[in-house]
Amino acid sequence: SAMKKKIDSLNDVFIEELSDLLSAENQLVKALPKIAEATTSTELKSAINEHLEQTKKQVNRLQHIFEDLGQKPPRIICRGMKGLLEEGDEVVSRSERSAARDAAIIGVAQRVEHYEIAGYGTAEAHASLLGHAQAQELLHQTLSEEKAADRRLNEIALEHINSEANE
Amino acid sequence: SAMKKKIDSLNDVFIEELSDLLSAENQLVKALPKIAEATTSTELKSAINEHLEQTKKQVNRLQHIFEDLGQKPPRIICRGMKGLLEEGDEVVSRSERSAARDAAIIGVAQRVEHYEIAGYGTAEAHASLLGHAQAQELLHQTLSEEKAADRRLNEIALEHINSEANE
Repeated sequence: SAMKKKIDSLNDVFIEELSDLLSAENQLVKALPKIAEATTSTELKSAINEHLEQTKKQVNRLQHIFEDLGQKPPRIICRGMKGLLEEGDEVVSRSERSAARDAAIIGVAQRVEHYEIAGYGTAEAHASLLGHAQAQELLHQTLSEEKAADRRLNEIALEHINSEANE
Repeated sequence: SAMKKKIDSLNDVFIEELSDLLSAENQLVKALPKIAEATTSTELKSAINEHLEQTKKQVNRLQHIFEDLGQKPPRIICRGMKGLLEEGDEVVSRSERSAARDAAIIGVAQRVEHYEIAGYGTAEAHASLLGHAQAQELLHQTLSEEKAADRRLNEIALEHINSEANE
């Protein structure tokens, strides 16, 4: 829209990326409890609930970065995350509680994690180029957490869900 | 919608994932020429154009898998990719031809690649569990290409765009 700021410099790109991530994390904070509730595997449920707590901390880190930069986060909606969460809703609405639903939820959750891994990876690289050392450190922390969350989903999928869904 | 098939088994999850990927790739085939056209860096432009040709082959592989499984691909829209491409449109509409726009486009393109890396990673694991050896092989080929495309974007970003966008 005409209201939206132009993207003219790497700093504009960086602020845009941070705003997109903030919207993505805020959408996740709202969506994760419903997703956890829809699962059957107790291991998957607790992984999602623990990631919810982590996500709240990640929101705080992004807000902290905006404060350090002396910027107010522009209110944008991250459409990538919106689309991903719609896919999650659809998977749940078209399935009953089962290992198959859990396998499909893990698939969506891993697309969410990869979305964030790419987003934080780019933002960290830009923080580094712009010389925002503290922002870089905070973004790196979150990036490590997202990678660990993706690995944990892989483990849960391999150990439990996939073989049960195939019985 | 009530028309849509229930997701009851790992096979249903797998078909759903393949359909989602097919929609994602078809959306990309339409979107990539516009995105390439919006870039300034000739290296980025040719990377995107080469990825377009690769994407067409990836569509063929998915269609081949559906034929082998004796299934017609359900017509679904991959909402994750739809959201990602809307982000791309927005980046372009809010910027002029510049290194900053190129940096932002690379950010979106890497979110696209990661979306696909996660999608193909899950689908390959499910093909393996379901004993669909040829599908697994084809999905693995595409997965390797998506990872290579992501690495190439990283290199282009590091070598050219980021430092120019920061001048």
